[in-house]
Amino acid sequence: MKNKQMKDALEEQAAFIDGYLDKYLAKKDNPQSVIYEAMRYSVFAGGKRLRPILMMNACKICGGDVNEVIPFACAMEMIHTYSLIHDDLPAMDNDDLRRGMPTSHIKFGEATAVLAGDALLNKAFEVVSEYSGDDTRRVMKAINMLAVSSGAEGMIGGQIVDMESEGREITLDMLRYLHLNKTGAIIRSACAIGALIGGGSDEQIKAVDEFAKNLGIAFQIQDDILDVTGDESELGKPVGSDAEEKKNTYVGLLGLDKSKELAEEYSDKAKEALALFGDKAEFLIELTDYLTTRRS
Amino acid sequence: MKNKQMKDALEEQAAFIDGYLDKYLAKKDNPQSVIYEAMRYSVFAGGKRLRPILMMNACKICGGDVNEVIPFACAMEMIHTYSLIHDDLPAMDNDDLRRGMPTSHIKFGEATAVLAGDALLNKAFEVVSEYSGDDTRRVMKAINMLAVSSGAEGMIGGQIVDMESEGREITLDMLRYLHLNKTGAIIRSACAIGALIGGGSDEQIKAVDEFAKNLGIAFQIQDDILDVTGDESELGKPVGSDAEEKKNTYVGLLGLDKSKELAEEYSDKAKEALALFGDKAEFLIELTDYLTTRRS
Repeated sequence: MKNKQMKDALEEQAAFIDGYLDKYLAKKDNPQSVIYEAMRYSVFAGGKRLRPILMMNACKICGGDVNEVIPFACAMEMIHTYSLIHDDLPAMDNDDLRRGMPTSHIKFGEATAVLAGDALLNKAFEVVSEYSGDDTRRVMKAINMLAVSSGAEGMIGGQIVDMESEGREITLDMLRYLHLNKTGAIIRSACAIGALIGGGSDEQIKAVDEFAKNLGIAFQIQDDILDVTGDESELGKPVGSDAEEKKNTYVGLLGLDKSKELAEEYSDKAKEALALFGDKAEFLIELTDYLTTRRS
Repeated sequence: MKNKQMKDALEEQAAFIDGYLDKYLAKKDNPQSVIYEAMRYSVFAGGKRLRPILMMNACKICGGDVNEVIPFACAMEMIHTYSLIHDDLPAMDNDDLRRGMPTSHIKFGEATAVLAGDALLNKAFEVVSEYSGDDTRRVMKAINMLAVSSGAEGMIGGQIVDMESEGREITLDMLRYLHLNKTGAIIRSACAIGALIGGGSDEQIKAVDEFAKNLGIAFQIQDDILDVTGDESELGKPVGSDAEEKKNTYVGLLGLDKSKELAEEYSDKAKEALALFGDKAEFLIELTDYLTTRRS
């Protein structure tokens, strides 16, 4: 698949998810309607829907029906978005712009931004618990995976470690731990939930999880590489901002060449993990190549 | 039941819940352990566990086993606590003290306070989705009620209306709407979830919900009354702070006498709603009297 074809495929899948996000986050005509404006503003600020797309494809390769993961795919995107809103707050990263647009607290004020993040997190658990089908036990397990991966032993845990290590050098092990949690945990649960709801066997779920774990690391290393080698207009943010903010990065710890090697290594591991799916894994394998060689 | 007896009963029930909260929030020995410190600090800062107690007793009068609502009772308290942490933030109410102790952002810094609130909200959904019993469908419905009541159509909706109406006078209808959402929604869902998990019939669940709706309003009016007539040392906060912060209150809109009448009216309605439970409702009826005539 050429880059252009992959881009089109990703855009198509993102549009599919966007239709459901639009319904789930329909603005209510009530006294608190500004909260819906704020939730929608950040959710529809140009996200690529990577986590929902991973989830849908993990579901598909296990033989599942993509429609069954829609609530989880949307919930995942709401959780990802809430984490960005709170990350951008003055007390956290203090970012005024994201993808070239004013961040939530710049647009709506800090109090509304805090609450819009909170409301998206609540909404995520609301949509996944609306389930009325027969496989309640499996869905309950998926809700639990969602909560664990977003919480103190997942994404939030990684954010804490990231904050605590800013401005001081950490070991490669700690950097890996940080990213396995901060960005890796929900990439992993996106894939594992897709496989679980898709009816995957234990072996298939394990394989998908191994794929996601390695993809998450490769993705993060590429992120760090782009911060040094990327093009500002393609990235939508200044190049070199990690170093300026004294963030710990793979490039900072290992240098550019070794980082590129490592990204390829993890990317290969991710693809190998999908071997048991044969041809069915084609899209996820090409997506891995696309993501770990991306320019923005 | 005398006040002293009621106080002892409430303390005993609170201690029962605290034991479980302590287990659910056990500090982990890992690089992000400060998040557990921050979560525990606010959860164990002297809360009275009113919502869990209401839930347990709503379960009991429907003939249910209190042990079955423990995860939900703890989740409810985590959600209540997260909302207080975020409410206290500089961008929101900017409170340095709560119950005489430094608030989370004063103690741990603003970034950790934001994340501790987020982590408690995640943890709430984690503990309720750990369920492995047979009544998965009922538990799923309860998770949904929890999410809805805490979200944009519940507590967060009320917080938004509260923020937007600060500094300008609102109608009594809007004040009621505000409180029905801000404090009322989770008091209601605490009771309704207790009745639901307790195996209550539709009629019983409806009665418990009607009780909770009226109790919530009576409780809020009493809160407003105490802000004017209360004793600073008993309240743990300055008297008259509502008026100073230009908050809309029942006392501000209706005066003290009319507010007292109204509190009694809603308190009566709450107690009447429990008629179908006969003697079994004794504790909840006495609790209603206790809460709506409380001094702090």
